[in-house]
Amino acid sequence: MIEERLKALNIVLPTPPKPAGSYVPVTISGKTAYVSGQIPIEDGKITHKGKVPSPQSLEEAQKAARLCIINALAQLKAEIGSLDKVTRVLKVSGFVNSSPDFTEQPKVINAASDLLVEIFGEKGKHSRVAIGAASLPLDSTVEIDMIVELS
Amino acid sequence: MIEERLKALNIVLPTPPKPAGSYVPVTISGKTAYVSGQIPIEDGKITHKGKVPSPQSLEEAQKAARLCIINALAQLKAEIGSLDKVTRVLKVSGFVNSSPDFTEQPKVINAASDLLVEIFGEKGKHSRVAIGAASLPLDSTVEIDMIVELS
Amino acid sequence: MIEERLKALNIVLPTPPKPAGSYVPVTISGKTAYVSGQIPIEDGKITHKGKVPSPQSLEEAQKAARLCIINALAQLKAEIGSLDKVTRVLKVSGFVNSSPDFTEQPKVINAASDLLVEIFGEKGKHSRVAIGAASLPLDSTVEIDMIVELS
Repeated sequence: MIEERLKALNIVLPTPPKPAGSYVPVTISGKTAYVSGQIPIEDGKITHKGKVPSPQSLEEAQKAARLCIINALAQLKAEIGSLDKVTRVLKVSGFVNSSPDFTEQPKVINAASDLLVEIFGEKGKHSRVAIGAASLPLDSTVEIDMIVELS
Repeated sequence: MIEERLKALNIVLPTPPKPAGSYVPVTISGKTAYVSGQIPIEDGKITHKGKVPSPQSLEEAQKAARLCIINALAQLKAEIGSLDKVTRVLKVSGFVNSSPDFTEQPKVINAASDLLVEIFGEKGKHSRVAIGAASLPLDSTVEIDMIVELS
Repeated sequence: MIEERLKALNIVLPTPPKPAGSYVPVTISGKTAYVSGQIPIEDGKITHKGKVPSPQSLEEAQKAARLCIINALAQLKAEIGSLDKVTRVLKVSGFVNSSPDFTEQPKVINAASDLLVEIFGEKGKHSRVAIGAASLPLDSTVEIDMIVELS
């Protein structure tokens, strides 16, 4: 039961943030769900703005990545009703707002990957790409999208 | 009928531009079509080069994004015969050639998203990611790829 | 037989490199395999670091792109046993560690696309997106991920 797992991890899924544009948070085709790029928004405000490693440290960027996943799961739950329907996280794309010489994108996105495995166990083990972006929407420090397999 | 909708919107799908490399414009697996990254090409020439917000304004970048979608639909139609076979636009990935401090990628890619909804209605509502790229092929201002569900 | 084709091309698939983070190299859902972003690693060391066109030339970046594909195929083979199960390469996403004024990403990623067609023939013809990244994991010159259809 994913809800119990979230409780044990002290994670409360928020009301999912509204898309910052004219699109939808999740689409589903057959057993595949596509979750739109999520940014570190909490209570309607972006918590982490600007690039890594400055003004945002690696540690702060990791918190941002974790929050992106929490928002992605909130979006997914709002769409499918229960996260118990997730049978596999297939792909995570992690974009880090990076200075041209920042090269630790994997460490940033590991915070997202680790959280998915903490929550979903084996089903949370995903393929991944981590990229340094020149800039991101609303100056977010991280943006993450996901492809998920549903039962 | 998507053709009538395109006519009503005064959109003429061009002869699809040739890929700028050794790949194909569209692949299909089951009901899923993957459309290659499209750039703002018209009559064989790139209409929008360089970064946003300078030399390209937000407004010009939006025109570029719209043209990417028109080219993507031209590619898709050439492959599948009729756009009436599109049952859902699943995912749009929008890359904006961005100065390090440009953060309005969502507004740029909204022009693409809005056009898809104008053309396809509910079927055009997609998940999305918008990213600031350090640079793009042939100095294009925008590049957009799509994943589409077919009947 | 893909193994014979690889031999004819003098390509030896290496022991696949370990992910630079807490994720898995390949996930599979139905007939679709998602291969994680691969970087130019050989014998445990990154062969191409830094941006294009300097310190890495276009030619060197092409070698890096080719090596990304070899590593991606090594990962895929380790997961599915035989590359003969590949029925179509559906999508290649190529990220090039780019100076803000570098615009020849398609030429870089063509080295990857060409190799896929040399190896898989018609089945290797894929859709593609090529992007200039502000920076990449471990300062890699290129990162490539793939979506592949399996029998």
